[in-house]
Amino acid sequence: MIMPEVEVKEAERFMVESLVAAGAPLTEAKAHADLLLHADTVGHFSHGLNRLELYINDIQSGVCNGNAKPVILKETVATAWVDGCEGLGATVGNFCMNLAIEKARECGVGWVAVKRCNHYGMAGYWALKAEKEGLIGMSFTNSAAIMVPTRAKKSANGTNPIAMAAPATGGDSIVVDMATTTAAMGKVEVQICKGEPIPEGWALGPNGKTTTDPQVAFDTGRLLPLGGFEKTSGYKGFGLSAMVEVFCSGLSGSRATHNVPLWTYNQTEAPNLGQCFVAIDPGCFAPGFEERIADCLQHWRNMEPVDPSLPVLAPGDKEKNNAKATTARGTITYPQAQLDSYKRMAESIGVRPLEVYVQ
Amino acid sequence: MIMPEVEVKEAERFMVESLVAAGAPLTEAKAHADLLLHADTVGHFSHGLNRLELYINDIQSGVCNGNAKPVILKETVATAWVDGCEGLGATVGNFCMNLAIEKARECGVGWVAVKRCNHYGMAGYWALKAEKEGLIGMSFTNSAAIMVPTRAKKSANGTNPIAMAAPATGGDSIVVDMATTTAAMGKVEVQICKGEPIPEGWALGPNGKTTTDPQVAFDTGRLLPLGGFEKTSGYKGFGLSAMVEVFCSGLSGSRATHNVPLWTYNQTEAPNLGQCFVAIDPGCFAPGFEERIADCLQHWRNMEPVDPSLPVLAPGDKEKNNAKATTARGTITYPQAQLDSYKRMAESIGVRPLEVYVQ
Repeated sequence: MIMPEVEVKEAERFMVESLVAAGAPLTEAKAHADLLLHADTVGHFSHGLNRLELYINDIQSGVCNGNAKPVILKETVATAWVDGCEGLGATVGNFCMNLAIEKARECGVGWVAVKRCNHYGMAGYWALKAEKEGLIGMSFTNSAAIMVPTRAKKSANGTNPIAMAAPATGGDSIVVDMATTTAAMGKVEVQICKGEPIPEGWALGPNGKTTTDPQVAFDTGRLLPLGGFEKTSGYKGFGLSAMVEVFCSGLSGSRATHNVPLWTYNQTEAPNLGQCFVAIDPGCFAPGFEERIADCLQHWRNMEPVDPSLPVLAPGDKEKNNAKATTARGTITYPQAQLDSYKRMAESIGVRPLEVYVQ
Repeated sequence: MIMPEVEVKEAERFMVESLVAAGAPLTEAKAHADLLLHADTVGHFSHGLNRLELYINDIQSGVCNGNAKPVILKETVATAWVDGCEGLGATVGNFCMNLAIEKARECGVGWVAVKRCNHYGMAGYWALKAEKEGLIGMSFTNSAAIMVPTRAKKSANGTNPIAMAAPATGGDSIVVDMATTTAAMGKVEVQICKGEPIPEGWALGPNGKTTTDPQVAFDTGRLLPLGGFEKTSGYKGFGLSAMVEVFCSGLSGSRATHNVPLWTYNQTEAPNLGQCFVAIDPGCFAPGFEERIADCLQHWRNMEPVDPSLPVLAPGDKEKNNAKATTARGTITYPQAQLDSYKRMAESIGVRPLEVYVQ
């Protein structure tokens, strides 16, 4: 199947113009487009253009305030409690991570928890923001309940992702960015499109038993925590999602994950997500941090693989390789159905449609 | 099989006297016994009396200095870099977690990384130390390479555990304490004793393929990361172990996990582990933290289970239930073979052997 390509610059233009048309100020629209473009660039298409329409809809319906400015409610030299004021994901993310970075520069650690947030895209984008400044970055968010706690019949937790990025010498890095479920719902959707089953351990069906039918998994909305079943330690993934909940709704006073509404086009109230942004300055610890991280990366990458055609990847390598390929190509590939849908949206908000790249 | 019981007080007496006989000062011996006793009390027997002999051997062989006092090498109001000086696990753990707690009380966060450590028992014990003070506690350690990175043939990472504990109202708490492998090697040993296979996704055999034979898994020493295979997101468990490595050897300058020697009775050099201790004061964030954590706990525990005989447990409930049962009984159950082995040790170091409880 040949999929249409769109120039990166053109995808950016379209995202920015659409967000502005919906009511976001230009600077915030640009920041948010950068966040979405990052996801498409590193190959996590579920979090890129794919979600633009939901963000647009959030602004139009008023659950997201494109003009909001976050407010610090309480702070120390190392911490801050912030009200996100229902701003755009990138507006709140940039405010909070900049604050965490500032605090890390001052005392070694910045720990910022924020309530009244909207969706903030890939968690890893925020961790990388600190990593680019030579710091360790971390970011966490809660989300709507589509994870089944171990032994439970229904969902109660979000995919509650954990992201951590650490700099190594030569511009290299370790990047961890993971939902605490075994698989994100986007991966289930990919299997639906392919017409292929999902592995056991990804999701439960309506009877509380595992299903390998991606459509059943999608309709039921009960993803298993990382680890899968109890015998393969699924309770660890549940524990990790609980930890994220402590950092997000626990510290910020946002809505708890079991009360967060699903992200749909019929949203009537703000999701009031909780998020957490952390920066740590390795300069406050043992000298030679970046060299040690580089040594780990080199060790892992040089290991003998089980299958010679599948080299061992360090955490974050897959996304780095995808980003290199995207930059070399200068284009991003989107499914035709997505482009058709965005053509309709473009017309309805009065923005020039995405132009498909012709070689 | 009837297993002999030992009174908790008697187990403690034996641990303290053995550590003192090996050369540890009484206060440090008591602290270390408390750490081991905690593991046996909550039902994680692999990390309790089971390991006393290894700790004793470490002191006798000189790789652990029972009299060492950790030293702060660098600090800010929120951070500290510490030299563990090859002290006992409990000595270094108490020093570092107390420091993290002090800093959290002062500025909201305390982040302490320490090099030249020995094994420090259950990671969760250290997180709970902060939790008991009304703080969020976290603790991480690296360890010998028995985890296979995704796609690799051999091991490169430790089980690199993550622990987090957060207080709720009424003395309740969320406690996460997990190896970043699917299963700890102790669980493989349990299957050997039972003569039962291990599930697929726990470990690889020498050919780089999954094995269900626990003896093969034990001898090969290649545990899969949490998530298991690549298709069930084993790279996430690998990513988590890498994150722990960043906090431990990365920040502290200790030995990297791929260079840490296996913990045996033939240790000739200090392991130089890296550890990390974190405390966060919820008082610096939104009021009502403990109420929100209690609400999550209640929500999870009240969920309908798939199997009515297996109620949904919140993270840490299993250990809390075990601890209650141990306290009610007043005794801990140990395998006869372990008591026989400790009888020989007691004779060789001149300590009164463990007395078995007779009703």
